[in-house]
Amino acid sequence: MKTTRIRSALFGLALLLTAASAAPAQTPKTKATPPAPKPIEDVRFPAFQQKTLPNGLRVVVIEHHEQPAVTLRLVLDAGKSFEPAGKAGLAGATAALLNQGTESRSAQQIAEAIDFIGGSLGASSSIESGFATAQVTSDQIDRGLELLADIILRPSFPEAEIERWRRQALSGLQISQEDPSYLASAALARRVYGDYPYGRPGEGTPESLRSLTRDDLVAYHKRYWVPNEAILAVVGDVKAADAFARVERHFGGWTKGSEAKLPPFEVPKRTKPEIIVIDKPDAVQTEIRIGQVAIPFRDPDYFKAQVYNAVLGANSSARLFNEIRNKRGLSYGAGSWFREATNPGWFQASTFSKTESTVEALKVALEVIRGLEQTPVPEPELTAAKRFITGSFPLEIETPNGIATR
Amino acid sequence: MKTTRIRSALFGLALLLTAASAAPAQTPKTKATPPAPKPIEDVRFPAFQQKTLPNGLRVVVIEHHEQPAVTLRLVLDAGKSFEPAGKAGLAGATAALLNQGTESRSAQQIAEAIDFIGGSLGASSSIESGFATAQVTSDQIDRGLELLADIILRPSFPEAEIERWRRQALSGLQISQEDPSYLASAALARRVYGDYPYGRPGEGTPESLRSLTRDDLVAYHKRYWVPNEAILAVVGDVKAADAFARVERHFGGWTKGSEAKLPPFEVPKRTKPEIIVIDKPDAVQTEIRIGQVAIPFRDPDYFKAQVYNAVLGANSSARLFNEIRNKRGLSYGAGSWFREATNPGWFQASTFSKTESTVEALKVALEVIRGLEQTPVPEPELTAAKRFITGSFPLEIETPNGIATR
Repeated sequence: MKTTRIRSALFGLALLLTAASAAPAQTPKTKATPPAPKPIEDVRFPAFQQKTLPNGLRVVVIEHHEQPAVTLRLVLDAGKSFEPAGKAGLAGATAALLNQGTESRSAQQIAEAIDFIGGSLGASSSIESGFATAQVTSDQIDRGLELLADIILRPSFPEAEIERWRRQALSGLQISQEDPSYLASAALARRVYGDYPYGRPGEGTPESLRSLTRDDLVAYHKRYWVPNEAILAVVGDVKAADAFARVERHFGGWTKGSEAKLPPFEVPKRTKPEIIVIDKPDAVQTEIRIGQVAIPFRDPDYFKAQVYNAVLGANSSARLFNEIRNKRGLSYGAGSWFREATNPGWFQASTFSKTESTVEALKVALEVIRGLEQTPVPEPELTAAKRFITGSFPLEIETPNGIATR
Repeated sequence: MKTTRIRSALFGLALLLTAASAAPAQTPKTKATPPAPKPIEDVRFPAFQQKTLPNGLRVVVIEHHEQPAVTLRLVLDAGKSFEPAGKAGLAGATAALLNQGTESRSAQQIAEAIDFIGGSLGASSSIESGFATAQVTSDQIDRGLELLADIILRPSFPEAEIERWRRQALSGLQISQEDPSYLASAALARRVYGDYPYGRPGEGTPESLRSLTRDDLVAYHKRYWVPNEAILAVVGDVKAADAFARVERHFGGWTKGSEAKLPPFEVPKRTKPEIIVIDKPDAVQTEIRIGQVAIPFRDPDYFKAQVYNAVLGANSSARLFNEIRNKRGLSYGAGSWFREATNPGWFQASTFSKTESTVEALKVALEVIRGLEQTPVPEPELTAAKRFITGSFPLEIETPNGIATR
């Protein structure tokens, strides 16, 4: 198979941008097609009931009776930020292996048990969190809870399954490392955070994956898969009192551990913008990333950041898309987001362009970002941004799984 | 960026397998962990109301009031099977361009209008079908229908947007053509169907994409995006009578065309199994595909095929996964599916393995498939397969979008 080799550059750019303000404008400009503004609805999260077990596990039940189905979703502090140095990928490995064997079941027996009821069962991890999820029909809630508890409380981490997982993870990593988009995002996060775990590749590196042992997984599970700060959401066709009783039966014996502690965070010192260029000779296009440390999840400016992002790059009517794609045709897409975390998360704007228009696309993206810092947002644009946020919310929570994920 | 170069082969295999029977066994064997069999529930699709407009458009409404959201989904005969020869990718291009400009709105104005209500709007295509979908909050159903009708009835296919789409599609294709999994599946479909359109790459080829003109898109849209055989599903927080009235207002003026006709189909003659090997020197693993022409969607054996597939490869307790991964550790995954269509669709089994275990993995896959032809399925395994199908169904239709997609 022959590849046409095009000389191309891959940019990852870490820029220090000052915190953006989304204050309403004094003199609103009229847009080309002003849709009639409507009142912003009062969107509400569904009612829930909660109860905390003696071991610390917080159980949240949301009744949702439209379909005979239930989603069970556990969230706890077991993400990559708690990995020891040199063990990048351990959080993901631990989660991935949970359903690959328990004290009383082989991987195959777990698969048969969940497939027999037509359900799904699995675990994963993110920056700070570990997740375990089961989806079952509501008549099978007890079986679902039993299986979920089995993989969370009593995983056996069989050596053979670890080796299979490692081989697959290494092969996936090899594919990712050929992907300009993956490389650009990974390089940006690393540059923004330096050695802080938020900048660590969740998938690990070839070296770190090869270094993981069964003992590492067992120790990580024992230390971080504990009920202290965990939340179990039960969403669907279930009665709250019944759900609490069943959860207590299956998770009451989960032993308390010690709480997870994030390493202390200090915003990396940077006096001027930095540009990183990664040369990828066979890349078809240049991937561009712009980012910086932003705000923590519980920041009072959290909602302002959402509105800022809706104006800047959350969708295809936002400024980045409009300027880079619609007005100048430099890319097929452009956007931005905030990644929130306990300590300050990061902001990222991204686009891609043909090699020869790379510098222009980058310039336009920076102009758009700076423009939003310097000039107040016209009122109609601000209203549209808020409407986008409130209108999207009901679409995101229309399923038990969607609600359990929030 | 340096890639370790591993010599590897990529297999695409078209095998003529006789139609499989999933008849219950006379002498059931007991499995290692027999879960207690339970009665198979009566799973039902939600109640719906329907009405056909004078132009032929069939409107189906399913009320679903849990969340204040509505999904609108149109399906019609405008997939790749109707493309003229040499124009592979035209069906996808036509669908992709629908929301990129209409007689009265630019791409940007469409994006602003849908983002302003926090909704989504888009179109796509498959083997035989074209799809257009809008998701909105229920107070915005009229706006959603108006926008959906605008892109379906009055797209303008601006030249500049076509060029942007083409550049992006060519770049996506270049990435796909480096992906062993994509290559293996595409080669299999092509081999199974010969020149018949089902075997055509939906994404097109570099040559066919370059040949597409605005006139091609306009003609394809005019010919195939017609109401005659179209179905519009309205699912969500809406009253049926109200939904019918609104749909009629926005889609009543859609002009009838002529019905789409599939080219006549003849099962390609093949006297013995064929093996195709694609050499991809830098591939990490070998991708393996096994397939043949199977049954049409309306075949009386449709449900038998589903059960056959649940036994063979639908999940991680099925035989392919169990034999290839669990027992022999030859792969991280293995599975199978039927792709149904109006004319006979195809069956595909797939797995992947390290270069050195390629032949063994292929042998085991063939043994598993032949074993299922030759020996009746034990009763507990058959029950588990049926339970998997009936248990999964409520989880698939728990959202308005999930229902509208069925």
